[in-house]
Amino acid sequence: MKITLVQHACSADPEANLGRVHDGIAEAAAGGADLVLLQELHNGPYFCVREEVRAFDLAEPVPGPTTERLSGWAARYGVVVVGSVFERRAAGVYHNTAVVLDRDGRFAGRYRKAHIPDDPGYSEKFYFTPGDTGFEPIDTAVGRLGVLVCWDQWFPEAARLMALAGAEILLYPTAIGFDPSDDDAEQARQLDAWITVQRGHAIANGLPLAACNRVGTEDGNHFWGNSFVCGPQGEMLARAGAQETVLSADPDSARPEQVRRVWPFLRDRRIDAYVELARRFRD
Amino acid sequence: MKITLVQHACSADPEANLGRVHDGIAEAAAGGADLVLLQELHNGPYFCVREEVRAFDLAEPVPGPTTERLSGWAARYGVVVVGSVFERRAAGVYHNTAVVLDRDGRFAGRYRKAHIPDDPGYSEKFYFTPGDTGFEPIDTAVGRLGVLVCWDQWFPEAARLMALAGAEILLYPTAIGFDPSDDDAEQARQLDAWITVQRGHAIANGLPLAACNRVGTEDGNHFWGNSFVCGPQGEMLARAGAQETVLSADPDSARPEQVRRVWPFLRDRRIDAYVELARRFRD
Repeated sequence: MKITLVQHACSADPEANLGRVHDGIAEAAAGGADLVLLQELHNGPYFCVREEVRAFDLAEPVPGPTTERLSGWAARYGVVVVGSVFERRAAGVYHNTAVVLDRDGRFAGRYRKAHIPDDPGYSEKFYFTPGDTGFEPIDTAVGRLGVLVCWDQWFPEAARLMALAGAEILLYPTAIGFDPSDDDAEQARQLDAWITVQRGHAIANGLPLAACNRVGTEDGNHFWGNSFVCGPQGEMLARAGAQETVLSADPDSARPEQVRRVWPFLRDRRIDAYVELARRFRD
Repeated sequence: MKITLVQHACSADPEANLGRVHDGIAEAAAGGADLVLLQELHNGPYFCVREEVRAFDLAEPVPGPTTERLSGWAARYGVVVVGSVFERRAAGVYHNTAVVLDRDGRFAGRYRKAHIPDDPGYSEKFYFTPGDTGFEPIDTAVGRLGVLVCWDQWFPEAARLMALAGAEILLYPTAIGFDPSDDDAEQARQLDAWITVQRGHAIANGLPLAACNRVGTEDGNHFWGNSFVCGPQGEMLARAGAQETVLSADPDSARPEQVRRVWPFLRDRRIDAYVELARRFRD
């Protein structure tokens, strides 16, 4: 499965951003991609930097206008597209939703971000109702996709539940960046930790993994790019810098089963001893 | 908390190996260590390379002869010692057990390896009954220790359960090595994956972590050393090569709480959605 990530900056003009998305999909398809992974909330600036009621006007239904655009491009170029939409589900119920369009344009499924962050510059708990889709992979013509979103990437539980449900790859649309008030050493630790924890999920589950992050400075957040694809031993297959780019990798689809034969972690999980993972804290 | 790891080769002579352990503890204490982490099954060669009934004769009670030796050294040098014993619990019930001796020599507790590997050269399922201690940290004068053993290090569940129970550091006595029939690239991926997945546990839980591995070639297994200590963002604090060494690091005890304030993963875990982690596979 050849996978291509479209890493870009976002302006305040949704049409310009969707134009960048279109061009990325077209470029990916021309390069032979089977699947295109877009970044989180690719239609516009990262509005969660502050809490503003009017920002809810950016939300839209799913399926809806953005999925229709993505669906048309998926069909036109014959690629599976994983996109990201600020979903309006009902008045007062909004989600940060990943959407999957199959390569014939069919709406293959959605995943609503389960783990919602809230820290300075990332006020997501104000906007996003925690997802209730559970951790269910989405079947497409190119495989069973374990689609998660951004903050989910820090939680081994999410990756594991996708793997247990038969996901063949883990995919993370992302918007993460540096706090400019942090010093260089802290910024370096954060970027490295972000990559490392995800490589850890790949290793623990014997699955390839891709994360697509945005770039550019928006309202104090400096999005760090560094989109990457790794294989089932966490080995780096492709990694971007902090510039706009279209990044491709071609994980060997036979490799995960080989890796899981050598490292049969799923065989040895102590499912009799894990019940307390569903507790907040064991005190 | 200054932590020192004693990474060494093992001969067929238990007294020589325990002498190496003693010297490592003495050297660690002279260097100001608060805690000494030993490697897995440090008393002798890694006998699990094949299945031999007579190898059970190596097992001993816990507390027992080895814990008594370690206890004496812990008290003499005033350091907490985390050791590893082939435990005979009953006829037919043997465990791969980590033991903790407090700095006054008191037997502080044990952890019986929960995840038991079995692959060519590592026939541990023949020898070790899966542990039933659960994932309970062990309190000592220098903190609450999340002691796990070797193969546990590939399982995010084990690290998480220790963190949820208030562990202040994750510690892994280890015996892992290369299969000489693998090519250099595969060996490099395996070593990097072993370090990365553990750094991932440190990150996901906001905890420092140390793994102490053996070195040397024994009966076809080439133990890769590379013992290390990382901080709560997975940042490498100290890392050994493949030679015998005494390795120290001094993780900042205030850092985990700071990291968890910036990255409050424990706040955001979706404990309502994790119940299926206790399933073998979600099919």
